[in-house]
Parts: sequence; C-alpha cells; structure tokens
Amino acid sequence: MYETLTWQVDDDGIATLTLHRPDALNAFDLTMARELLQVFLTDARDDAVRAVVVTGAGRAFCAGMDLSADGNVFGLDESLAPTPEEFRAAYDEPPYADGVRDTGGKVTLAIHALPKPVIAAINGPAVGIGATMTLAMDLRLASTKARIGFVFGRLGIVPEACSTWFLPRIVGIQQALEWVYSAEILTAEQAHAGRLVRSVHEPDDLLPAAYELARSFVKDRSPVALGLAKQMLYRNGAAADPLEAHLTDSLAMFWTSIGDGKEGVAAFLEKRAPSFTGKASQLPRIV
Amino acid sequence: MYETLTWQVDDDGIATLTLHRPDALNAFDLTMARELLQVFLTDARDDAVRAVVVTGAGRAFCAGMDLSADGNVFGLDESLAPTPEEFRAAYDEPPYADGVRDTGGKVTLAIHALPKPVIAAINGPAVGIGATMTLAMDLRLASTKARIGFVFGRLGIVPEACSTWFLPRIVGIQQALEWVYSAEILTAEQAHAGRLVRSVHEPDDLLPAAYELARSFVKDRSPVALGLAKQMLYRNGAAADPLEAHLTDSLAMFWTSIGDGKEGVAAFLEKRAPSFTGKASQLPRIV
Amino acid sequence: MYETLTWQVDDDGIATLTLHRPDALNAFDLTMARELLQVFLTDARDDAVRAVVVTGAGRAFCAGMDLSADGNVFGLDESLAPTPEEFRAAYDEPPYADGVRDTGGKVTLAIHALPKPVIAAINGPAVGIGATMTLAMDLRLASTKARIGFVFGRLGIVPEACSTWFLPRIVGIQQALEWVYSAEILTAEQAHAGRLVRSVHEPDDLLPAAYELARSFVKDRSPVALGLAKQMLYRNGAAADPLEAHLTDSLAMFWTSIGDGKEGVAAFLEKRAPSFTGKASQLPRIV
Repeated sequence: MYETLTWQVDDDGIATLTLHRPDALNAFDLTMARELLQVFLTDARDDAVRAVVVTGAGRAFCAGMDLSADGNVFGLDESLAPTPEEFRAAYDEPPYADGVRDTGGKVTLAIHALPKPVIAAINGPAVGIGATMTLAMDLRLASTKARIGFVFGRLGIVPEACSTWFLPRIVGIQQALEWVYSAEILTAEQAHAGRLVRSVHEPDDLLPAAYELARSFVKDRSPVALGLAKQMLYRNGAAADPLEAHLTDSLAMFWTSIGDGKEGVAAFLEKRAPSFTGKASQLPRIV
Repeated sequence: MYETLTWQVDDDGIATLTLHRPDALNAFDLTMARELLQVFLTDARDDAVRAVVVTGAGRAFCAGMDLSADGNVFGLDESLAPTPEEFRAAYDEPPYADGVRDTGGKVTLAIHALPKPVIAAINGPAVGIGATMTLAMDLRLASTKARIGFVFGRLGIVPEACSTWFLPRIVGIQQALEWVYSAEILTAEQAHAGRLVRSVHEPDDLLPAAYELARSFVKDRSPVALGLAKQMLYRNGAAADPLEAHLTDSLAMFWTSIGDGKEGVAAFLEKRAPSFTGKASQLPRIV
Repeated sequence: MYETLTWQVDDDGIATLTLHRPDALNAFDLTMARELLQVFLTDARDDAVRAVVVTGAGRAFCAGMDLSADGNVFGLDESLAPTPEEFRAAYDEPPYADGVRDTGGKVTLAIHALPKPVIAAINGPAVGIGATMTLAMDLRLASTKARIGFVFGRLGIVPEACSTWFLPRIVGIQQALEWVYSAEILTAEQAHAGRLVRSVHEPDDLLPAAYELARSFVKDRSPVALGLAKQMLYRNGAAADPLEAHLTDSLAMFWTSIGDGKEGVAAFLEKRAPSFTGKASQLPRIV
C-alpha cells in the first residue's frame, strides 16, 4: 500500500509506523512525505488506533532528506521568489502553498494534530528531518545505537519541520541553541543527558519498551480524555495567559464530565475497571 | 471560621494554610473551593502576610476531588450544554460563569494572582486537584511520603485547574505528556527527578524547610519588588517577545527606583539592613 | 576607542568583548551601557564577525550597577511619573524613551537582536545587571570562581534587562522564582546544577573553552543559516502556535535553499568542505 513505510495496528490499538527504505537508511524524500501525511491524516485517525509507535527499518531511523534525489530535493519551487512580506501574506494561498511551504513541516503539523500519543523509537541514526520529525512526537525513546543530529548548519540551511517551536520546549533554549549551532551528531547518552530522549535502551529492548509505554497510556483510559489532554498541554504550555487554560479546562471538563467522566467516576466508586465509549474522532474542537 | 481549612500568620508574616479534612484525606469539595478562594482573595492579600505555606492535616496533602460527594462532584451544571463556539463567547457571562467554569481553575487563578511567594509543602498523597493546585504555587517541597498523581485519564476527565499551563513550564513538555498520559502515582523521588518538586525532606523536616525558605524570601526584602518580580516572571516567561518584558521592566524599575529602591540603595551604601515601606497591596498594575 | 570595554576580532571571526573597569569590578554604569549598545549595534554586526565571546577584565565579570555613581544610578528620570496606562502608550515616544526605558534592557535587546552566537565566559562575580546581561547571550560558561546573583530583591528593585523573559526559558519557572525570591549569590556549581550555565571550567580553561565552542559554531557553517536559526529558536520557542514556526521555516528554507543551501548540498555530495558566500548582514527579516 505504501512505498516508503509500513503500517500495522495490533489488537490493543497500538500502531507501528516503520520508515521503510532500509537500503537508503530510510532517507526522507517527497514520496515519504506524502505517505506520512496520508498515514497521520487518515490511517492514524481511525478510532481503532489508540497510540502510534514510529521506528525505522534496518539499522537507521531516518538518515535525513535524500540529497541524492534528482533535482528539487527540498520540494520547494525555486521559480517562486516571494519577499518576506509577500510570503507572510501569501504562503497559505496557491501557488505558494504547493511550492513554498516547508515539506517537513507539513508532516510534523500532521503528527502534532493527531489527538493520540505518538512515541518515537529511535533505533539508529536520526539526522536532519530524521531528527526534527521526532520532535513533534510526544516522547522519544532511543536505542544505544541512536545518533541524533540537527545538522542543518553544515548544509547552509535551517532547522525546519517546526523544530524551532518544539526543541526549546523539550530541552530548554540554551541546549537547543548549542545543538543547532554546533550541528554535531549526538550519542544516545548525550541526547538523554540533554533531556531530548526520555530513556535509552539496549537495541533489542527498544521496541518492547515503546510498546509497554504505549499500552500503559491507553489501557483503561478514555481516548477522549487523552486526546483533549494532549491538545491542552501543547496549546496551554505555549499560551500567554493561564486564562487561556481556564477556558480550555472549563470546556473540556464540561465535555468529559457529561461523557466518559460519568463512567470513570462510577467505575472508581465501584472499584472496577472503566469501560469508556467516547471516541477520539469526536473530540470537541478546542477554540 | 473555615470548615475545611485553617489559616495562621506568624510574627514574620509567614502564613500557614492547612487543608483540614483529615478524615477524608483533605479531599477537595465545593466548600473547600469556596474557602480557598476566600483565603487567597482576601486573607492572604493583607499586607501583614508576606508569604504562604500550604500543607495538609494528617497523613495526606489532598486526595483529590471528593468523588463521594452527593450529586454534582465537579460543580458543573449539566443542564447547560454550550457548543465550543458558544462556550468561548459566553463562558465569562452568566449563566455560564457559575455553572460551566472549572472549579479548580477558579482556585488556582486566585493563587496565581497573589503577588507573594506561595510554597507547597506536600506532606503525603496529592492526587488530581490535590496535585494540580500545587502547580500554581511557586515552589513545591515534598516529604518522602508524598505521592503525586495526575490521574485524570483514569477517570475519563482532563487535567484541570490551569495545570496544562503550569506543568510544561515546570517540567518541560515531554515529562508533562508522559505523566498525564500514564496517570501514574509518582513517588517523591520520581517527582524530584522530573523537576516537579524542588527538594525532598524527611517528614519531620518538611515544614521547617518550607518555613526557612519562606523566611529567606521575605527577610529584608521589599514586598513590592517581590510581588512585581513574581508577576513579571510568570508573565514574561510566557510572552511572545522580549519587548513585552522591556515594557514591564521599565515600568517596574521606574516604580521601584522612586520607591523601595531608594531605601535599598541607601542601605547598601551604608552597609545596613534596609527598612522597606512599600506595600504589596499597592503594586502598580502590570499592563 | 571605548572607555569601559575592549573589543578584538581574531582571524576566525571570533570577537572578544571584555568589560574593562577592573578597579570597579567592571561595574555597569551609563557609559558602559552606551558603549555596549554601540558594540552590539555596529561593531558586532560587521560580517567579519562570526561569533562573540563576552568576559570581564581582572577578577570579576561584572559587579552590577555602579551604585556609587553620582545621582541617577539607574538612568531613569524621576521627574517623569507616568501612570501604567500612560506608560504603555508612551514608553517608546519622547520624552519617555530617554528617561523611562530600562537601561539594562536596551543593552540586552541589542545583544538578543544580533544574528550570531554570543557566549558569556563568566570569569568571576556576575551580580545584578552583571548576571542578567548574560541571559540574553546564547550560552553561559563559568569559571569555578564565578558567583552569580539575581540580588534585586535586596535592593528593593526588580530583575530587569528582560531577564524575566529569558530566565524561565533557560532554567524553568520554579528555579527562576526561587533564585529571584532568595536573591542569593550562587556558586558556579549551583548555577550549573540549575542549568543556568552550560559548563564549569578551571579559571585558566574558561576562555579556551569558550573559543573552542565558538569556533565549532562557525567553521564551515553558513552565517545566514546560523543567524536565521538563532532568530527562529528564540521566536518560535516563544510563539503560541507551531503554525508560526511553519511560516518562518518555509521562508527560511526557501531563502537558504536558493542561497547557501545550494553550496551546502553540493559540498556534501562532493564530500568536500563548503564555501559559503551568504552574509549575516543580508538575512531576510523574519516577519
């Protein structure tokens, strides 16, 4: 079904997305970008999917943009040359939308918008877009063989895929600046010491740890409560004022208290496991 | 004077607020919510109060929302069913204000608005609203017996009380997502390793440590300078642009340089302790 | 050329800015403020300068505002007494601009706006504005002799120089509140444990470490890519929505992909060092 990746969902609703161009170290190209968009905007939104684990086939996670691709490696249309002002005014409009919008960012915005836990299981080198795409995932687990690099400065380009939004929120601004300035390849331990990855595992233990974590997130949990909580943490963690959080809290508490919260409280009082019926596909829009 | 809590102020201006329903593990109910609002909006605003230490009576800090309460445990009016759009438009207006606004958030917004240091001394279990109310306090000290849980996902509801605004700012977005997704009960050590609590103490040492810290914050300090600094750190730490900080700095430096700053500089040059006369009740509004 | 500082640029484009009033422990006065503005708005913007290392002459980094100065130590005009509302409306206009804007903030905004790495090499005491000015620098290295204090509360004034914008982003809100409330002098080790300084060095190793880091940031790197990345990390790390980042990413990727990115990709494919021709003085304005 897909050329550059595989997608499987197990009986617990844990999906595995595997970047699958092992001969090219799973390098990211425009086909992979389109297929990742498709996965996160459609397959992963099925209510049967409760959480997503992302990993790479073979020895790499993702070696970055495939610079050996013919021609237009970044997917940008060089014949368009907007000024910054034209850019701001027009980038959501055709023709800019197609030829000017950062390709990696289209993918990470789709990952970010999924109201379900997404876990990166970084099994090997994750470089460039291979590193930045993991920042839009909620947690990062690494194998001892992981190598992570924000190498953009070496190529004369900038960190993309909304990475400058995510990275300071994960590791703080000082660490983010150092890694982006240095453009060095980090070991798993360095990435862990800098709080980029949550935990480091022996290679054979990586996927089992990711699945165990994913299961702990969804077993006996309400998909509505989880999806709202994800949106609220990212949104309110970046909001200027706690009053913004009070608005989302009030809406979400109201919504859940007449929904899965009724079953949750009843199950708690009756000392039994809850049986939630809410669906992530039917979350209220946080406005 | 209060049914669910006690309030005492010592000669140094250090107030102790004790959640006091020990037979119910200090569970939070609508009476406690009203009384906490009263304390933070009136008692704690007295200029004789310089800092507040919050703890729990008996073996718990606060076991969370009292789910055994009759009927309307969350304080929301289920007969109101606004759409998200109606919600945004109307939540500050009657009738929504009374029946739709998150109860925990009313309390944490009042804690947050107090221009004085607030220290949580978490002496035992702090779960649900018992955990989230501490996030609006400035520092969290924990006893080795503290157990902290953002357990909302188990109940089919969401983290409330503006917790999604505070938590990522305290522990970073990755740790915040994991704790909210997992809904696990954390030990004091886990909470410390994840930077949620500032320090862990033997049970008998907890309150003395909290008082020592509170005293170090207020002895020979200007309450005006402290109150402004608190507002500036939260506000500018969440502002989009450092120019916002430059505005508040300029206003606050101007204000204090013709106020307590004159005494502070004079005392420094004369190598004596300052004697500040400014009052926290007369801060300029940060606009 | 300057009264209060020295400025040197080596052959690799690494500039050294030395605060140079050693008899006064490099205390900050209005002359130093004017000269720092001059350096960061003109000298440091020369394309021959690729990175800046800031340190202090003698045994101190900067002992803070020179409170022994005659008269108007803070540079504010006390005859002006705007209300908060007048303040917001007028603070960029004469006469307020000259007499009301925080002096330290003018300097840190100029540091922040420089699209190049700035590294603080904190060789000794850094107190008050001596501490807060380092927050607008990208990374802080400390000697074992460094002592850092946000001592404003002792003087009845507030943390200034946009420090309430930077500090929570570097160390988190809980640590920032504690240090500002306590107004204590931190050792290098305490500052490192709290993630304020990146690394601690023996006194003789401090400047070599800062230079090595600075060189690793600029050798074979595009100054355009670096300058854009700096602006993007600060801007998007504080933006409310990742869509803001997608806008800057798209603009910056477009800009660099038809600029230094062409050379970067070619050099990578040809396995040679790149030879970038872009200039930091010609960055697109991030809008």
